[in-house]
This record gives sequence, C-alpha cells and structure tokens, in this order.
Amino acid sequence: MIQEKNNSALKVNKGIQQPSSVNDDVAKNFINKKKEILYLNDYIKGILSGDITILSRAITLVESNLPKHYSLAQKIIERCIPYSGNSIRIGITGVPGVGKSTFIEAFGKYLTSQRKKIAVLAIDPSSIISKGSILGDKTRMEELSNDPNAFIRPSPSAGSLGGVARKTRESIILCEAAGFDTIIVETVGVGQSEMAVNFMVDFFLLLMLAGAGDELQGIKKGIMEMADAIIINKADKENIQKADVAKSQYQNALHLFPPSASGWIPLVETCSSKTKMGIEQVWKIISNYIELTKSNGYFELTRKEQAKHRMIEMINENLRGTFYQNEKVAKLFPVIENDLLAQKISSYAAAEKLLDVYYKSLEEKK
Amino acid sequence: MIQEKNNSALKVNKGIQQPSSVNDDVAKNFINKKKEILYLNDYIKGILSGDITILSRAITLVESNLPKHYSLAQKIIERCIPYSGNSIRIGITGVPGVGKSTFIEAFGKYLTSQRKKIAVLAIDPSSIISKGSILGDKTRMEELSNDPNAFIRPSPSAGSLGGVARKTRESIILCEAAGFDTIIVETVGVGQSEMAVNFMVDFFLLLMLAGAGDELQGIKKGIMEMADAIIINKADKENIQKADVAKSQYQNALHLFPPSASGWIPLVETCSSKTKMGIEQVWKIISNYIELTKSNGYFELTRKEQAKHRMIEMINENLRGTFYQNEKVAKLFPVIENDLLAQKISSYAAAEKLLDVYYKSLEEKK
Repeated sequence: MIQEKNNSALKVNKGIQQPSSVNDDVAKNFINKKKEILYLNDYIKGILSGDITILSRAITLVESNLPKHYSLAQKIIERCIPYSGNSIRIGITGVPGVGKSTFIEAFGKYLTSQRKKIAVLAIDPSSIISKGSILGDKTRMEELSNDPNAFIRPSPSAGSLGGVARKTRESIILCEAAGFDTIIVETVGVGQSEMAVNFMVDFFLLLMLAGAGDELQGIKKGIMEMADAIIINKADKENIQKADVAKSQYQNALHLFPPSASGWIPLVETCSSKTKMGIEQVWKIISNYIELTKSNGYFELTRKEQAKHRMIEMINENLRGTFYQNEKVAKLFPVIENDLLAQKISSYAAAEKLLDVYYKSLEEKK
Repeated sequence: MIQEKNNSALKVNKGIQQPSSVNDDVAKNFINKKKEILYLNDYIKGILSGDITILSRAITLVESNLPKHYSLAQKIIERCIPYSGNSIRIGITGVPGVGKSTFIEAFGKYLTSQRKKIAVLAIDPSSIISKGSILGDKTRMEELSNDPNAFIRPSPSAGSLGGVARKTRESIILCEAAGFDTIIVETVGVGQSEMAVNFMVDFFLLLMLAGAGDELQGIKKGIMEMADAIIINKADKENIQKADVAKSQYQNALHLFPPSASGWIPLVETCSSKTKMGIEQVWKIISNYIELTKSNGYFELTRKEQAKHRMIEMINENLRGTFYQNEKVAKLFPVIENDLLAQKISSYAAAEKLLDVYYKSLEEKK
C-alpha cells in the first residue's frame, strides 16, 4: 500500500528526498535539451492539426512513468491547455456485462454520423491488478475504431487509481486540443474510479440492465445518486417490457433522491445498442443538460471547481506520498497499526506517534 | 479557509513550525505536573464510576482548544480506551424540521425504560458558523435530560468539521468508559458531517417525513444510500396514510440500491414520536442489525476499519494543515489559483508550483 501511494505522488519533492540526484537530472536534461525541444514542437504541431498517431504518442508519454517522459509530457500539456476545454465530457459507467462497449459503439457511431469527433478514454482500476486493459480486446468497438472521426484509447495498464485518473484528465486535454468535441470516459462501476470520473466530466451516465437484482451486486453505493441519467440497456426483443418496468421503477426511485445543485432532474431511458432504439434520445438528454447548465452557469462553475479540485487532490496525494514513503514512518506503521487494532492506543495517539517520527526525520535530514 | 485547516490539524508539528516554543511548553508542564496528575486520577475515577459531572468536565476538556487542556484530555482518553467499545453506536440524521429531537426524546425514553443507559452527542457543522449549538435550546428533550440514565451533550460550539468530528469520536470513548451502553450521535443531514458520523457509528438511521419533495431539498446526495434504516417520522393523525405510502415508495427505491457489504437490507418504517407508534420497532431493527453483523463478523471488522480510518484521517489533516498554513504557500496560493481558473496553467502545474515552494521553504528552515 505504501508503495502504491508512493507511485501516485507528484515527483517534485525529489530535491528533499534525494538531494544528491538533482544535479544528475539537470545534466541529463541538458544533453537532451535540443532533441527535446524539437520533439515538443513536433508534438504540438501534430496534436493541433489532429494527427491521431502523434496524439497517441503524446498520450503514451503522459502515461509513462519515466522521469524524462514526464517532463516532456508536462510541457506538451501546458502548451495544449489554451486549446482545450471546448468539448462535452461524458462519463459512462456500469458493471461488467451491462454492455458498455456495444453501447459506446452504437452511441459513438451515432455521434460521428452527426459530424461529431469523439474520443473514448477508459479508467479501469482493475487493470492495476491485472496489468491488462478493459479495451485490450481488439474485437471491442470494431466499427467505431475504424471510424476516422473516432479515437479509442485503452486505459493505462498500471498505476494507482490517483495516477490513472490524473493521466486520463491530461489525456482529455490532449484530445480536446486535437479537435475532439465529445469525450467519453468509461469506467466499470465497481470502484472509486466513478468519483474520480465524476470530477472530470460534465455529464455522468449510468448504464443498467432491466430486472434490478443480482446484476446490481457490483455497483458501488453512491454511484446511483451521482448519475445525471440512467439508461436501461439491452431493451430489445423479449426484454422490452422488462426494461419499461425497470424504467418506471428507477424513475420513481430517482424522484425520492435529493435534487442536484445543477437544477437538473436525472432521467431514465431505455435503449438497445443492437436495434439502436433510444440511442438518439441519449444524445438529446445530454444536449438538454448541457443547454440548461450552460445557461444557468453551472457548467462553467463545475469546470472551474473540477480544475481546483484536481489541483488540491494532487497536492494531497503528494503530501501523503511523501509521508508514507518516509523510511521511518514505513517501519513504524505496522507496529502502531497493531497497537491500534488491539485497542491499546487511540486513533489520535497513533496518528501523533507517526507524525512525530515523520517530522523528526525531516529535521534530522538537515 | 487556510485558517480553518490549520485549526483542524494535530498540534504535534509545533517543533518544526515554531522550534523556540518547545522549551516553554515543557517548563509549563513541569510546573503543573503534580496538579495535573491529581486531576488525571480524579477524572479517571469519576468517569469509571459513572459520575456525570466529571464526565461532562472531561468532555469539555476534550472540546477545548487550549494546549494544556489538550494534553490532559489525551491522557484521560488513553486511560479510558480499555474501558470503551462496549456500546451500540447509532447515528441519526435528518434535515431540520424532521423532528430529530422529539424522536430522540421518545426513542431515548424507550431505551431507558429497557434499562439502557444512553448518551446523546451531536455533530453540527452549522454551529461552526453560528457559534451556537443545535442542542442549546433548553426546552429540547426536556424529559430525557431529566432522566438519570440519559446523558445529553450539546455539540462543540466552534471548530472545523474535522475537529468537531474528532472530538465527538473521543467523547464516545469517554461516555462508554462511564458505562453508557447506547450512544446516539445526531447530525443535521445537510453537510459532510454524515460521512464523518458514518465512520464512527455501527448503525446509521435516516429520519424522513412523508411526501417526498420539498423537505428533501436539504438532504445531501449520498446520504440515502448510507442509511441502514429510513424512518418516516410524524406518522400520526392525518399523516398515517401518507406515511404508509411513503414507506412503500422508499422500500421500493431501496430495493433498487446496491446491497450493503454487511449483508443487511436497509428497512423503512413509520413512527410517531407523539403517539410512540413504531418507536419500539426502531430498536428491534437496530438489534437485528447488530445481531446479524456480530454473527457475520462485519461489526468487529467495521469497528477496526473505523479506528484505522480515523488515524489515517488525522494524519492527512495534519499533513494538509502544515502545508496550507505554510507562509509561502498561503501567499502564493491565490496567485496560482487565479492562473488555474483563468486556464493559464494546468491543475498539475499549479500543484507542482505550490509543492515546490513548500518543500523549498522546509529546506530553508534548516
């Protein structure tokens, strides 16, 4: 766990942790400087002209954990920032089996038919464990991936959730700078990733199946209340009636929910990715939402809050990372944890002891 | 905001922040030492014998922001820890007007009639602003406050939410050591305090009124999904039918919710604090929940997770507090924030700049 937190921290505190390595880094950077500047301009030119190959390579840089890639990636992002922001960002979640990829394929094809340029990104915490990717299966979204107006990007293959979410956030910026006007961020609905996605999208869509019950087992608490719309998928053939029943059940349930600060009342619709029934309606709902929130200022406000939230989250991740990766803290932690769980000391005293060791070790490093 | 975060941080990092004050503190402690040890034993003896006056004074110490009180309070808590934990901790929330105090009065009277000893504590973030207390009104819970087996404690009158929640957590320990076997923690359902309470209780109860609509405006998203039971209050006279309708609506809605890790299915009941209808049933529900979760291990597991969560939360609060109260960070923060909101820099670059300044200023202090 400590290692993971370490990974998710920003890397700017190197100067304190390993003061001796600073000069080496500077030296390396100096040697590479000419080449790097060339690359940087190539990247910017390529991204701004909508070159998918260069966009892909830039995202790979963003996802890389190597310090030299990191530095270049940050420069690319900073240069792309002024060209970003002009898209509609849609989060889509649902448990495995709900038909997310077929839905995104149908929905994406509809959008490109409407002259939209769409980018599909994925956040998948399970890929941290499996080192795989939910979009790794090449047969997924076959039609959409051959569409010149669609860009599909598998999730980063490893890293902490915080890291993955940060990288997705940065990939959104690059995609927007490359001219994509609709960004879809896909998650699996079983972890904390939805909270992270909720903080990077304008609209949050929850895919469900008809017949509430077992298939809900995987959905985490709190996700239903986050949804701006619930779409009952697979409403075709013998499922149509069941889907309609589910629709009215969810619609009734949502009325009991506390209203959103946006002034928007979450909607429930049925759709079929197979017959395309309801797909156009999903886009209509999203458009209405965007229209409402742009006119009442909620859209702009949320975007600003999200940017600030991301900054604060990154700061907090770094502060935690530096603490937990501290050698003395890491050594003492299991001892203190044992005492705490055995009810020998209070949570407060446990925290105090660890913080004492931490701040003292910082002093000793002087 | 920075000031508030400062307040909520632990105070152990003083050595780094103001190294010169350490010796003064030690000197003062030395002078008071004899007196303090006497006080400490008085407190412990009083609390363990169930002396309400001494318990009250100990909680006042816990709530105090003075360093000398803080040190004594921590010693009292550490000594009480081995005698704590043997209660059922119940969180009760609901928006203002739902009838929380009349419900707690009726429910509390029922519990004391069953030979229970109950303590009622309150967390109220609004009191941070008003410097008042939701239990300040002396006419509230009149009957219960005269009951020798009930102890009612108003919320701390000021402090950040993190601080208030910590103090409530510590007050629970003292109440348990004083022999109270049922602890009720009351919140107002409109802020983050419910999340904090959810991490310190065994059972979370949401009070509602019949007729979903306007009265729900105040309830925060996510709270409904946290509830182990929803109780529709004021089900008397002409309200009975309306309450029954609401009950079945909520029951249907809860079935659509993701199930809890405890294996418990949240229940909906109606009650009247006036006629006492349903009050006994509320206790029955809670007892069933406790029986289930004690037999499947969830009760014990949650208690341990809560203790660890509190420790980690305190560490994080301290790390954030030390960062935001740093002079250079506080000075640069509004500048960086402006650039971020004007989309001049990325969230990542903003975080990096602030962290750079922070770690450098720590280095300079050497």
